[in-house]
Amino acid sequence: MKARNDQTGVPPAVATAYHHSGSLWERLKAASSSDWDQYLRNEFIWHLADGSLDPRSYRYFVEQDYIYCINFARVYALAVYKSRTIDDMVKSLATMNAVLNKEVLLHRRMFEEWHLSDADIDVLPEAAANLAYTRYLIDVAMRGDVLDLHTALSVCVIGYGEVGTILVKHAKTKLDGNPFRSWIEQYAGDEYQAVARAALRHLDEIAQGLLTEARFAELVDIFGQTLRLDVAFWDMALHRKS
Amino acid sequence: MKARNDQTGVPPAVATAYHHSGSLWERLKAASSSDWDQYLRNEFIWHLADGSLDPRSYRYFVEQDYIYCINFARVYALAVYKSRTIDDMVKSLATMNAVLNKEVLLHRRMFEEWHLSDADIDVLPEAAANLAYTRYLIDVAMRGDVLDLHTALSVCVIGYGEVGTILVKHAKTKLDGNPFRSWIEQYAGDEYQAVARAALRHLDEIAQGLLTEARFAELVDIFGQTLRLDVAFWDMALHRKS
Amino acid sequence: MKARNDQTGVPPAVATAYHHSGSLWERLKAASSSDWDQYLRNEFIWHLADGSLDPRSYRYFVEQDYIYCINFARVYALAVYKSRTIDDMVKSLATMNAVLNKEVLLHRRMFEEWHLSDADIDVLPEAAANLAYTRYLIDVAMRGDVLDLHTALSVCVIGYGEVGTILVKHAKTKLDGNPFRSWIEQYAGDEYQAVARAALRHLDEIAQGLLTEARFAELVDIFGQTLRLDVAFWDMALHRKS
Amino acid sequence: MKARNDQTGVPPAVATAYHHSGSLWERLKAASSSDWDQYLRNEFIWHLADGSLDPRSYRYFVEQDYIYCINFARVYALAVYKSRTIDDMVKSLATMNAVLNKEVLLHRRMFEEWHLSDADIDVLPEAAANLAYTRYLIDVAMRGDVLDLHTALSVCVIGYGEVGTILVKHAKTKLDGNPFRSWIEQYAGDEYQAVARAALRHLDEIAQGLLTEARFAELVDIFGQTLRLDVAFWDMALHRKS
Repeated sequence: MKARNDQTGVPPAVATAYHHSGSLWERLKAASSSDWDQYLRNEFIWHLADGSLDPRSYRYFVEQDYIYCINFARVYALAVYKSRTIDDMVKSLATMNAVLNKEVLLHRRMFEEWHLSDADIDVLPEAAANLAYTRYLIDVAMRGDVLDLHTALSVCVIGYGEVGTILVKHAKTKLDGNPFRSWIEQYAGDEYQAVARAALRHLDEIAQGLLTEARFAELVDIFGQTLRLDVAFWDMALHRKS
Repeated sequence: MKARNDQTGVPPAVATAYHHSGSLWERLKAASSSDWDQYLRNEFIWHLADGSLDPRSYRYFVEQDYIYCINFARVYALAVYKSRTIDDMVKSLATMNAVLNKEVLLHRRMFEEWHLSDADIDVLPEAAANLAYTRYLIDVAMRGDVLDLHTALSVCVIGYGEVGTILVKHAKTKLDGNPFRSWIEQYAGDEYQAVARAALRHLDEIAQGLLTEARFAELVDIFGQTLRLDVAFWDMALHRKS
Repeated sequence: MKARNDQTGVPPAVATAYHHSGSLWERLKAASSSDWDQYLRNEFIWHLADGSLDPRSYRYFVEQDYIYCINFARVYALAVYKSRTIDDMVKSLATMNAVLNKEVLLHRRMFEEWHLSDADIDVLPEAAANLAYTRYLIDVAMRGDVLDLHTALSVCVIGYGEVGTILVKHAKTKLDGNPFRSWIEQYAGDEYQAVARAALRHLDEIAQGLLTEARFAELVDIFGQTLRLDVAFWDMALHRKS
Repeated sequence: MKARNDQTGVPPAVATAYHHSGSLWERLKAASSSDWDQYLRNEFIWHLADGSLDPRSYRYFVEQDYIYCINFARVYALAVYKSRTIDDMVKSLATMNAVLNKEVLLHRRMFEEWHLSDADIDVLPEAAANLAYTRYLIDVAMRGDVLDLHTALSVCVIGYGEVGTILVKHAKTKLDGNPFRSWIEQYAGDEYQAVARAALRHLDEIAQGLLTEARFAELVDIFGQTLRLDVAFWDMALHRKS
């Protein structure tokens, strides 16, 4: 297995996918360029891209992602609680619903293929990197306001949209015969892209009227920390760390 | 307008509707019999029952109920956050969804009939009794666990189910020509009755493994306080108190 | 007993006490001038001022204020949780400490004089206006950030400082032989005035970097609502409403 | 550097310090014996005991512990918010006060010795294991009730009391000339021991009336998870992991 982020295994430079200049998302990425670079260069997604990922790492990823989704839905529940308009409430509710009633079921379908019983699923241990990520999100959500909260959520919601877009057209990516093709195509697909773009616009709407330069500096802290936690999550999956 | 809870306007005794002996719901009612009696005897619902309610009181009720629904959905969001099983999360999510995407729209449809614009709706002032009720629910939900939370929610969710059942068959109720017939029939109807009965069972499921006699005493405090807040809500509507 | 806010019982105009032009506190008062006027003109404090308050109303006020203090300390606990700097944490901790370990004891000393036992105190019923006020504070504290939270708290912490300053020098106030003299002098005294002025500066510090014009409009909503809840609290005490 | 938990570096067996049979603390330890064993056998504390700890690891520990204390105080703030009695509020407030106004100052004094400026301290990066531990505590505190919360806190508060007691009398411990002697003696000292024993009794008081066998199983989950996060914290310090 290659060393993490070595110069051979990971494409040296990737163009970012979304060019909404002036959007908060673009400003946050620009201000966190080093962490964002690590995010896009993490080995796990490039092993997905060329199909070289150890299937055990993928399965471990899916198992941990299942636990992640449950806690992610809990953060969206806090987003509903904290919303200041019905429109915001309904948007966060829709995402929570998609996570709990769709994503979770997709994972469960894979578990069936792997012959994991309900009892097996209930006792899946949560990896430390998983726990760190989701509990950090919960604290950000509880402590701050909707802008802090949606900034932290954006790394996963919008970030995976960028990852999908980048992977699907990258020279290093091999779709033919790639066992992880459906993962790539899901995040690159129209349905998920619409979700990511809506989240990007929603973040700008929320920032409207709340953002100041002092707050921007705080949001950059939250954004960078969340990026590092996401990279650690992929790393955990790659190396199947408990 | 009659004095509150006078012996003429309000039926002297009403049989309770649900006989799930041993259910936590029945035990809470029995331990709060005086508050429960006030709840069932409140003038507002009996003016609905015989059609004698001042239309301005009804309209005020619907306007305040609209604001109530928004905060009620926020409490359900906390229920999702606090749930300890996916099954619990999905149940609370379903109710939140029904409140935000169905109840709220039903209210908005009535607002259209009354020629209330979106701008009018946005500035509807929240009555003190409304604020007291929902913020109390939020504090109970945040401070305690899921059992505290669902006990407080039960007064509205299950209680309105009982009210519907009682009103629809009571001798004092006049359905023919009653302008509030649809309100009565909605809560007495199969769809809402299924919701109420599911909530009753859900409360018992949650109590399973958490309930002790010491906790029961605390739950009775929460239940009684919530009943009084609900009565105050109806009273506010009847008298159109700000 | 005089009607509420009548033109005879209440001084027609009171000069505001603190002139920190440009402070957020002054801006909030100016933007909520009608609610602020009601706050300063509420009958309860002017009956305190001339000593004409029914002692039963005063006692009811102290009993309810005792319950209020407990919940007020809970809001300060949330302020500690939500603080973004150690300095902020320590400031909110100090206030919480003063409320729980000093104010609460002062109340208990009065209860002793009135021969209220611990058992009596534990079952003091919480009035609806009391519950509404404190649970609203808790929801504001949980939902928003430290600026929302400290704006809501300012009505009591800084507001009482203004009330003390106004009452102590007003022509209608009679200190000699006034059974409520100690109440007035406590809030007008140097110790409390230092607390109020520190809170005023703290509010400005917190606003630094967070305040935008859009947020100011939201803060005015919170401030006005809290003023009305405080007036309702005094009204509850005056009329000993449950 | 020795491998983690190897049989040479770590004493093979340590007697537990507190024998309050029947206390919840003892029951939790017995039900989590494997995690508790790892906790007591972790290399970091035994390097402290015999003075062999790399000073850079100690310094890293103190720096991270400083950040830990701040978040720990935030959890105690939630304990105050969630308390159901004034007595409980005052107890949690006292601990919060000790952490924020005493522990934090002790750390700052060490920082002065190390010539760390305030600016240096403000930018100390938080290690992943530190973040995971404290945010897990915050989520437990927010999601559950006071019993969940104090169970999670006990690992640090009572656990360090046990560690101090064990280290100070163990054959492998060398106090003479040990640069970490003050650390050991602080936790073994009368003042801290009184804190730990008070926390142990407080946990039993809180459990009174809330504990059921079903809840005990949940508390064991929380307790075991917190033990593992504490071990990971020490491990992080030993190896100076970011």
